[in-house]
Amino acid sequence: MAAPDSPYALYYWPSIPGRGEFVRLVLEQAAVPYDDVARRPVDDGGGVPALMAQVKGDRSGIRPLAPPILVHDELRLAQMPVICAYLAARHGLVPADEARRFEAMQLQLTLVDLIAEIHDTHHPVAKGDYYEAQKDEAQRYAAHFVAVRLPKFLGYFEAVLQANVAGQGRALLGESHSYVDLTMAQVLRGLAYAFPRALAAVSPKIPGLIALHDAVEALPNIAAFRASDRCLPFNEHGIFRHYPELDSEPSAL
Amino acid sequence: MAAPDSPYALYYWPSIPGRGEFVRLVLEQAAVPYDDVARRPVDDGGGVPALMAQVKGDRSGIRPLAPPILVHDELRLAQMPVICAYLAARHGLVPADEARRFEAMQLQLTLVDLIAEIHDTHHPVAKGDYYEAQKDEAQRYAAHFVAVRLPKFLGYFEAVLQANVAGQGRALLGESHSYVDLTMAQVLRGLAYAFPRALAAVSPKIPGLIALHDAVEALPNIAAFRASDRCLPFNEHGIFRHYPELDSEPSAL
Repeated sequence: MAAPDSPYALYYWPSIPGRGEFVRLVLEQAAVPYDDVARRPVDDGGGVPALMAQVKGDRSGIRPLAPPILVHDELRLAQMPVICAYLAARHGLVPADEARRFEAMQLQLTLVDLIAEIHDTHHPVAKGDYYEAQKDEAQRYAAHFVAVRLPKFLGYFEAVLQANVAGQGRALLGESHSYVDLTMAQVLRGLAYAFPRALAAVSPKIPGLIALHDAVEALPNIAAFRASDRCLPFNEHGIFRHYPELDSEPSAL
Repeated sequence: MAAPDSPYALYYWPSIPGRGEFVRLVLEQAAVPYDDVARRPVDDGGGVPALMAQVKGDRSGIRPLAPPILVHDELRLAQMPVICAYLAARHGLVPADEARRFEAMQLQLTLVDLIAEIHDTHHPVAKGDYYEAQKDEAQRYAAHFVAVRLPKFLGYFEAVLQANVAGQGRALLGESHSYVDLTMAQVLRGLAYAFPRALAAVSPKIPGLIALHDAVEALPNIAAFRASDRCLPFNEHGIFRHYPELDSEPSAL
């Protein structure tokens, strides 16, 4: 996974896919080499110390508040949707037209809203504290999420997908896969891990999104990434956590 | 407030400043006329029905999930940061350089993260339910927010401000006020309403941000907006709600 001579350096927590994975999917689909710095050993300049040096250190560019962080020449960018949009613009993964790019960001930010709510199912009241210290609140949040919010978000994206005539129902925006499709696929993959029962319940209503997920995962570059050790499995330290007690049928509310 | 012949139509809840106010600040500072559609009477094509027609109706462009919504010719945009960035690019309220625009969006999205947490202080577990139905959870969320999250976010932006040599500590990005400064000022204004005690406690550590807020509010176009009926006062139905029981001193945790 080390490509120290590549133009792009990505900094993200080395033990979780998290928000870093949305950036990796863009880099992988673009087939550009990148240095996934914090995944290198500490004694090779990697690990959490390398990540912390970006957040705390006095470097060029605007200091980021949190990872993921992309460094490209003199530019240092944080915020997952910004990094994805920047890379997509450079590598043909978003339409060239400026209005379409604003529309792509609109969809990406709505996915980010969904991702934030998925995260908050296990951290509803204290982001800096453990899940175990907020299990009761998490139960309440997750029940509302599964019953109301998840169907609302996924139903929305299914409608956007079906309404995109240019993409013939196969892309959320434009004629071919953009970074928004890559993020959508990763969200569905994460939901399948964290909320298998809830996702199964809503799946009959989102056939287009399910097909979009399958199509993205079948892209040769993405499939190669998934089979590599560059792709980290989900676990109970990231956004998408499988806590069976939070994964109810929507009718449970 | 009606300017039906203007190029821009804004759709937002007519009874709260909310996320619409960040868009209004960009329009007002740019001094471009806009039709604040839902603030017109229902029998004049306004009100909530006009807003709902945008969300539910079958119009051109990508269907928005939620307001604010900006319609400009054939383009229909949702997501507050996207609308602000679009307007700023057209009216000189963000640097022209593309890399600087990505940096501006990075800062804007970090402000959006803060705004989301401010909202969640009163709606931590069920966004569709009343505050009164989640007061205990809100108390816990707000204590953590005041003690940990608010100082972290504001300290971050103070550091960004001080590090911006080009702006001489008076702008978060570039040499003059961008849409990011307008959003920062509105966030501080909202915090002064919703969390006066918590903001007073952190204020000594953020002199640059306080001065930035005052400078933005003193801009002639912004001051004129504040004095007009186009600017709605805060109330207990929006993002920034004053519930004294949530506004603790940071040491309360």
